Amino acid sequence: MNEPKLRKLLHDVHGGRVPADRALKQLKSLAIHDLDFARVDGHRSLRKGFPEVIYCEGKTPAQVVKIAQAILRHNDNLLATRCSKETFRAVKRAFPKAKYHEAARALTVVHKPLPKRGGTVAVLCAGTTDIPVAEEAVVTADIMGNRVKKYYDVGVAGIHRLLSLNEELLDATVLIVVAGMEGALPSVVAGLVDKPVIAVPTSVGYGASFGGIAALLAMLNSCASGVTVVNINNGFGAGYAASLINSLATVNSH
Amino acid sequence: MNEPKLRKLLHDVHGGRVPADRALKQLKSLAIHDLDFARVDGHRSLRKGFPEVIYCEGKTPAQVVKIAQAILRHNDNLLATRCSKETFRAVKRAFPKAKYHEAARALTVVHKPLPKRGGTVAVLCAGTTDIPVAEEAVVTADIMGNRVKKYYDVGVAGIHRLLSLNEELLDATVLIVVAGMEGALPSVVAGLVDKPVIAVPTSVGYGASFGGIAALLAMLNSCASGVTVVNINNGFGAGYAASLINSLATVNSH
Amino acid sequence: MNEPKLRKLLHDVHGGRVPADRALKQLKSLAIHDLDFARVDGHRSLRKGFPEVIYCEGKTPAQVVKIAQAILRHNDNLLATRCSKETFRAVKRAFPKAKYHEAARALTVVHKPLPKRGGTVAVLCAGTTDIPVAEEAVVTADIMGNRVKKYYDVGVAGIHRLLSLNEELLDATVLIVVAGMEGALPSVVAGLVDKPVIAVPTSVGYGASFGGIAALLAMLNSCASGVTVVNINNGFGAGYAASLINSLATVNSH
Amino acid sequence: MNEPKLRKLLHDVHGGRVPADRALKQLKSLAIHDLDFARVDGHRSLRKGFPEVIYCEGKTPAQVVKIAQAILRHNDNLLATRCSKETFRAVKRAFPKAKYHEAARALTVVHKPLPKRGGTVAVLCAGTTDIPVAEEAVVTADIMGNRVKKYYDVGVAGIHRLLSLNEELLDATVLIVVAGMEGALPSVVAGLVDKPVIAVPTSVGYGASFGGIAALLAMLNSCASGVTVVNINNGFGAGYAASLINSLATVNSH
Amino acid sequence: MNEPKLRKLLHDVHGGRVPADRALKQLKSLAIHDLDFARVDGHRSLRKGFPEVIYCEGKTPAQVVKIAQAILRHNDNLLATRCSKETFRAVKRAFPKAKYHEAARALTVVHKPLPKRGGTVAVLCAGTTDIPVAEEAVVTADIMGNRVKKYYDVGVAGIHRLLSLNEELLDATVLIVVAGMEGALPSVVAGLVDKPVIAVPTSVGYGASFGGIAALLAMLNSCASGVTVVNINNGFGAGYAASLINSLATVNSH
Amino acid sequence: MNEPKLRKLLHDVHGGRVPADRALKQLKSLAIHDLDFARVDGHRSLRKGFPEVIYCEGKTPAQVVKIAQAILRHNDNLLATRCSKETFRAVKRAFPKAKYHEAARALTVVHKPLPKRGGTVAVLCAGTTDIPVAEEAVVTADIMGNRVKKYYDVGVAGIHRLLSLNEELLDATVLIVVAGMEGALPSVVAGLVDKPVIAVPTSVGYGASFGGIAALLAMLNSCASGVTVVNINNGFGAGYAASLINSLATVNSH
Amino acid sequence: MNEPKLRKLLHDVHGGRVPADRALKQLKSLAIHDLDFARVDGHRSLRKGFPEVIYCEGKTPAQVVKIAQAILRHNDNLLATRCSKETFRAVKRAFPKAKYHEAARALTVVHKPLPKRGGTVAVLCAGTTDIPVAEEAVVTADIMGNRVKKYYDVGVAGIHRLLSLNEELLDATVLIVVAGMEGALPSVVAGLVDKPVIAVPTSVGYGASFGGIAALLAMLNSCASGVTVVNINNGFGAGYAASLINSLATVNSH
Amino acid sequence: MNEPKLRKLLHDVHGGRVPADRALKQLKSLAIHDLDFARVDGHRSLRKGFPEVIYCEGKTPAQVVKIAQAILRHNDNLLATRCSKETFRAVKRAFPKAKYHEAARALTVVHKPLPKRGGTVAVLCAGTTDIPVAEEAVVTADIMGNRVKKYYDVGVAGIHRLLSLNEELLDATVLIVVAGMEGALPSVVAGLVDKPVIAVPTSVGYGASFGGIAALLAMLNSCASGVTVVNINNGFGAGYAASLINSLATVNSH
Repeated sequence: MNEPKLRKLLHDVHGGRVPADRALKQLKSLAIHDLDFARVDGHRSLRKGFPEVIYCEGKTPAQVVKIAQAILRHNDNLLATRCSKETFRAVKRAFPKAKYHEAARALTVVHKPLPKRGGTVAVLCAGTTDIPVAEEAVVTADIMGNRVKKYYDVGVAGIHRLLSLNEELLDATVLIVVAGMEGALPSVVAGLVDKPVIAVPTSVGYGASFGGIAALLAMLNSCASGVTVVNINNGFGAGYAASLINSLATVNSH
Repeated sequence: MNEPKLRKLLHDVHGGRVPADRALKQLKSLAIHDLDFARVDGHRSLRKGFPEVIYCEGKTPAQVVKIAQAILRHNDNLLATRCSKETFRAVKRAFPKAKYHEAARALTVVHKPLPKRGGTVAVLCAGTTDIPVAEEAVVTADIMGNRVKKYYDVGVAGIHRLLSLNEELLDATVLIVVAGMEGALPSVVAGLVDKPVIAVPTSVGYGASFGGIAALLAMLNSCASGVTVVNINNGFGAGYAASLINSLATVNSH
Repeated sequence: MNEPKLRKLLHDVHGGRVPADRALKQLKSLAIHDLDFARVDGHRSLRKGFPEVIYCEGKTPAQVVKIAQAILRHNDNLLATRCSKETFRAVKRAFPKAKYHEAARALTVVHKPLPKRGGTVAVLCAGTTDIPVAEEAVVTADIMGNRVKKYYDVGVAGIHRLLSLNEELLDATVLIVVAGMEGALPSVVAGLVDKPVIAVPTSVGYGASFGGIAALLAMLNSCASGVTVVNINNGFGAGYAASLINSLATVNSH
Repeated sequence: MNEPKLRKLLHDVHGGRVPADRALKQLKSLAIHDLDFARVDGHRSLRKGFPEVIYCEGKTPAQVVKIAQAILRHNDNLLATRCSKETFRAVKRAFPKAKYHEAARALTVVHKPLPKRGGTVAVLCAGTTDIPVAEEAVVTADIMGNRVKKYYDVGVAGIHRLLSLNEELLDATVLIVVAGMEGALPSVVAGLVDKPVIAVPTSVGYGASFGGIAALLAMLNSCASGVTVVNINNGFGAGYAASLINSLATVNSH
Repeated sequence: MNEPKLRKLLHDVHGGRVPADRALKQLKSLAIHDLDFARVDGHRSLRKGFPEVIYCEGKTPAQVVKIAQAILRHNDNLLATRCSKETFRAVKRAFPKAKYHEAARALTVVHKPLPKRGGTVAVLCAGTTDIPVAEEAVVTADIMGNRVKKYYDVGVAGIHRLLSLNEELLDATVLIVVAGMEGALPSVVAGLVDKPVIAVPTSVGYGASFGGIAALLAMLNSCASGVTVVNINNGFGAGYAASLINSLATVNSH
Repeated sequence: MNEPKLRKLLHDVHGGRVPADRALKQLKSLAIHDLDFARVDGHRSLRKGFPEVIYCEGKTPAQVVKIAQAILRHNDNLLATRCSKETFRAVKRAFPKAKYHEAARALTVVHKPLPKRGGTVAVLCAGTTDIPVAEEAVVTADIMGNRVKKYYDVGVAGIHRLLSLNEELLDATVLIVVAGMEGALPSVVAGLVDKPVIAVPTSVGYGASFGGIAALLAMLNSCASGVTVVNINNGFGAGYAASLINSLATVNSH
Repeated sequence: MNEPKLRKLLHDVHGGRVPADRALKQLKSLAIHDLDFARVDGHRSLRKGFPEVIYCEGKTPAQVVKIAQAILRHNDNLLATRCSKETFRAVKRAFPKAKYHEAARALTVVHKPLPKRGGTVAVLCAGTTDIPVAEEAVVTADIMGNRVKKYYDVGVAGIHRLLSLNEELLDATVLIVVAGMEGALPSVVAGLVDKPVIAVPTSVGYGASFGGIAALLAMLNSCASGVTVVNINNGFGAGYAASLINSLATVNSH
Repeated sequence: MNEPKLRKLLHDVHGGRVPADRALKQLKSLAIHDLDFARVDGHRSLRKGFPEVIYCEGKTPAQVVKIAQAILRHNDNLLATRCSKETFRAVKRAFPKAKYHEAARALTVVHKPLPKRGGTVAVLCAGTTDIPVAEEAVVTADIMGNRVKKYYDVGVAGIHRLLSLNEELLDATVLIVVAGMEGALPSVVAGLVDKPVIAVPTSVGYGASFGGIAALLAMLNSCASGVTVVNINNGFGAGYAASLINSLATVNSH
């Protein structure tokens, strides 16, 4: 039951066309429907200005195109993650503005870019092989209206590379730190800054790295305060959470 | 917002005392409260005739007594699991009808026992050390109004013990099969009967039994159809699910 | 030793053609054969009205056809799970009535459909990628003579979708709830209904989902009573157990 | 080398008392000391207004008192986590203003409370046994200058309790969601709000909950966006990260 | 149905007192009872000359005494494993011949020792901390009628100790090799002999030995042929299996 | 230092051509070489009458042919496991008597078959998908000179199939029991016989079978005595150990 | 800020061209840059005489060529590990001196070989399938200027092969011991020598070897002192650490 | 066969008192005894100047005293690890020079201290709770004749503490780096120095640190070259390996 219908019901009660008892019964049975339009509202406010997102893995190009069309009917922008080139080409045919972010394996369609917020999301990664996950975070945070700065290949084995960035890092509002192998980078970064750090373990590594478990455990056990963690390789999740955090600074920044 | 209040609001709209628009706003903001009373209803029907249950582990005797008082204000019966003797004695002082089921480490207060349903819940266990878990299932199913039959120490290493029960097992409506170590019993039982089998792994065993994981995995991988599994040592969960299943037979049995 | 042979032996004893002692010895040595025919009986009653089932993974199309022929010699219907299109085509040549359920990757041959029972098996799944597993449950429950209702894509991240189904869910006799990732859906559903809930974890997810382990553990640890669990992706097992449960309601429903 | 010393060196060079080459050598060898005072500065700004924190586990009461004295020499406030009553009594003797938060097993000494920021940190927990972890988060966020609102015992098995809080939850700046067992609550909450959600798994549960691993995995695999995770039982870490996030909103809120 | 009853039935048929058809029905329904006496027979032959065994862990002294009495009513000898001194003292009061094997934590009551077989069971262990498990194997094999030779503290880090035993080891019929830590000993031993080697991992070790898992995995992955493995610390299981193997040599040795 | 060289040295000492001191030094430095010829002897006796074995996985056809040629220069027979058809064809060209055992994925070259021993190795498997592993055991035991009897598809879900074999099983000298999924079969078999049972877990199964870990754990935790375990899918290891055990019976059987 | 710039600044202060306060500010803000040139120095000394290393996995041939060009601009030699033949061919075109080490899957470009140090790095491996990992260690140690001796296929199942090498092993400065399956070799070797042993587990094995975890755990739990461990299959890491250790002997050997 | 006996045999051959053939036979049968004295020699050279070591865990005070007496009969010094105060007091009574290292839980008896070698073993640890493990390494390296320098509480969350030590660290011959939680310190240290780094994970941490597994995995997956790893909490193993490495530098340093 959407708002107009509810309004009509109440007016009908008011106008005596529907007795109170029948309306009561209808309202009770429709309680969920009341929530239903609340959900729409809530969700609209929830995602205001954010593109809807498609996770492409396990979907055919045709399916992705169909979902993209459904989303873009009511939205200006679109983000699709874990997207193959083949899927991109199919979406490109339907939406000429589609753009492929090869390193991130992400696709975006931006008809009306969001204005950039005031803060900065810093995205760091430890090694060059972590870049795809970092880029997924970058593309996500970018399309959601955030300024993003990238600091790649600043792993702890050459700690001075990281230290030379110290001042720049202090300027970021929120930091996403991507690392595989021993996953030590977020601990070091969180020791240098006083901002929230979102750690992203990657499946980079071999032997007893267990597809990222070693890095994940390291990050969960970080000796530095202020670190929270997302799932292995989940660059999108980190970018999304960083955007929510950064928007707090923005929303209140006037 | 409970029913009387909602009724009054609608009458007020009908009587012109509350304009439709204000009622609309109130209803929207109270949608959850509509659910709230639904919850009460739903829950009442959900748990009709079932005792509320307290999981005592990690609660002090005093806390358990307090919760028991709250429950027994509106319920006839009470089940408390993982209950120490000390806690039992505290509850006994408050409710003289409290009874301690030592093997099951469970406490019951039964002011008005539920009438027994028609079907039978069979509870089997593999070894004598599995009995506490089996007994928790028995006490749970019993207080929820089910006839329970017990078949203990019928492990697969002496398969004939089990086979000699074949006909009796075929009479059960639902079977709870409790086993530790290699957890093979549910597979064998499910191959003998055509009724739902609820498997309960126990933490009995040593070495690579991993506190019941070996048995749990065995049960999840059962080669026999009709087996579903609950958590390690979760006799209560098995008894509860068995009661829900047995009540299906009962509800429809006239 | 089948029944005619046993009857003959007893008549021979009765007619004095076989002394009691020799018969005693023969019976003792043949005790297993007695069981052997009991097995046939038991199994016939066990599977009465149920199709035999072939698990196709690791079998060649030719092997599946051969098994199918053996089954359909004595059965009206057949279910084959984890069936490739290639295997389906081979079976189709032998049994023109063979039908392929693409989403479920299941094959059925139904020469004489079972009459539908009274209750309803509700099959819910959290996301669209869980659908293959849900469909395997649907096909299984359907061919075993159950009415099935499907509620797909009702994951907990948009809880209102689920809540809007509340009344319908309360009508089901038994619910199969399929979910990957964090596997939270069965807990929420079991909190809403008073019927048995069979939880099916799926291998959907990435990173630390461990091919469904995360969902499996979540379901085993459900805070809601009445949940039992089957193995990861085991839609067939859930459908089979649900049918056993639903048949309880049916058997007794007159 | 602190600032005065560095200033003196440069003046000595300027005044010709120290040749440039010797100063060069000294500066190179002391480069780390430069960092050293930078560290002090950085740390001062990093922790501005935040109490230093002692993790008491594995430390004797005497050791904790000694560390507390060192901290309170330069700080107004102090937080100590995982603190036994015995340790509290020892600290109380040294600092009469010491206060014990029993549920959180935390100790605070507040000589000059921080002014409260504008936003709100909401702390939810699923069951009553999760409360100690939730309280650790509450005490942490509180002493760091945040307004905290608590919503306890709102687990997903009775989803309506949670839904009835919907509007309040939407008012929070950042949400900490604490849950053991199947760890489903953060996914449901993150589906209802558009704010960052920090999920805290607890070791509550038994059997295959593996001391919180089940809940941890569930949270890492959350199907809802915006969820980040801290280590099992790490209420402090969640409170600290929430404070960093909430301070973003505050810092910019004028 | 025991033998006398069956004999009577057949005589009744023979004597015309029971018609063949009724006997047929009775026999079918009692098939399991036929098995029942077969079980007794089978078990008697199965365990001929072997003492019954009590696993004491989790049983009270009183319970152990009661079981011991039941066993010794029909058996000459008794073995009880994982037996505390307290339990031993209780059994000693009932059976003055009870003997406690402290290192093995085992209790034996031997009223009529079995004659020793011809072959030899060699029991090796890697370190002195593995001795309790080795001794459990020794006591088990000994009471079951085997000659046992012990070679302790012959771990692979000082390989020459082992090599100096080479000729003696070649004389054994079956070898039990007990080792914790890296569990390498069985591989080395199996490379030196041409007899069956039963490997027993122990929970000796710390850190990543995982209570014996490291040794267990090493043994399962042995590069030497002829190694089979029992559970962690399962000295009894190894002794029992070794006795079964050694009895093969004995049974046929004339 | 081989035997002739050692003999010469001693004769040189005896004949005064080498002083005792120099011989002492030489002997000390060559102590290992003494072992070296002992190794040859030991190994010859160790493997007397047994074919050498090639594990083909990870070797090219050319490499396997080369190793086969080296072995068959000094041996009558050859066994190669995990052998592809392509490798077989390459070996076939070099050794026309080469035979491929398709189900076992094994290759044998038998120029002079070993005479069969007196005992019997029984090989059981639970399901048809376990057959390849069972066949590897069969081929191994067979070429090593053992009579083998096969009992396939006797899984515990239809326990009567197994029970009908009871008497035959009692005739075996040693039993190899192969099972995947829940791995319950060895426990049931070991409860029926009084002979050594070698359990072989297979990687058959899906979901939480973890490539055979579930079955492996079940077998290690068997409640039946007399069970020892080999690695997952290690049919060869089971066949080899069974042959060692069976040869004990044989060696002593006259 | 490199050395010349720093020198100029100090001279400017000395010459009065830059006031001390401005220099102070500049130095503070550049503290990191001071470290920056220290890093260059440190790294130059760190890697003096060592080739830079490229890990090729996950890099395209073109990327590897590009990195190789960057490295060889300032270095005489180059090592690239996990290198495909295709990548080798691409590098070969750019650097005709490139050489492919097929067994090690490594590529080297050596324009000016390092002079060999005095000590010896011994590389042992257990089986022929461990050779690729061993060879990676060999190539690494060799290009870093170490004499390397190889002892392959000396697994513990035929312990005498290893013992016959005893004297040679005692001559090595540091030993790398590579083994899969049960990973027992390093323990035996470390018991024979008094030099550091670096253990390298390999993913060789099947069933419960878990891709090398069994061997890794065995090595971490070695009962022999002096063993340290690198990651599974990490031949490069072992070779690199062995070179660092061997260089200690060399650096000090005059 | 020890050296005198062997000498006598050779002289007997030389003197014609023992024919060569009989000596040959004797030598072959005694080959192991030859090894036996070689072992003594080898071990004497192996442990030259090193104290024998007792691992006290699981041994009674009386047992430790007895072993200590055996060792000190032939050795000047003794190290005992994991030693309780009670055990220390017992040893102290027997050896008044016994000294207890409380932090390390180690006991030493030093009658004739070894002269210190030239190099330095640096021992770093991340947090104060890692100190016991670090101290075990210190005591071990110290008694084995090494100069040890300690750098405690230099964890990566305050990276500047570590960096300020840079020059001192470069002076060490070998570095032991002890860390729990996320185990990041060895990676950072190995990036700063060009010497071997031995990483020691500790069981410090909670939640998903799994008793040190998180740190262990991090160290095995270190992105910095030159890191090798010992078992969790194995300070002794690290100290021992470091001493072997440091002695290389010493042995060759003149």
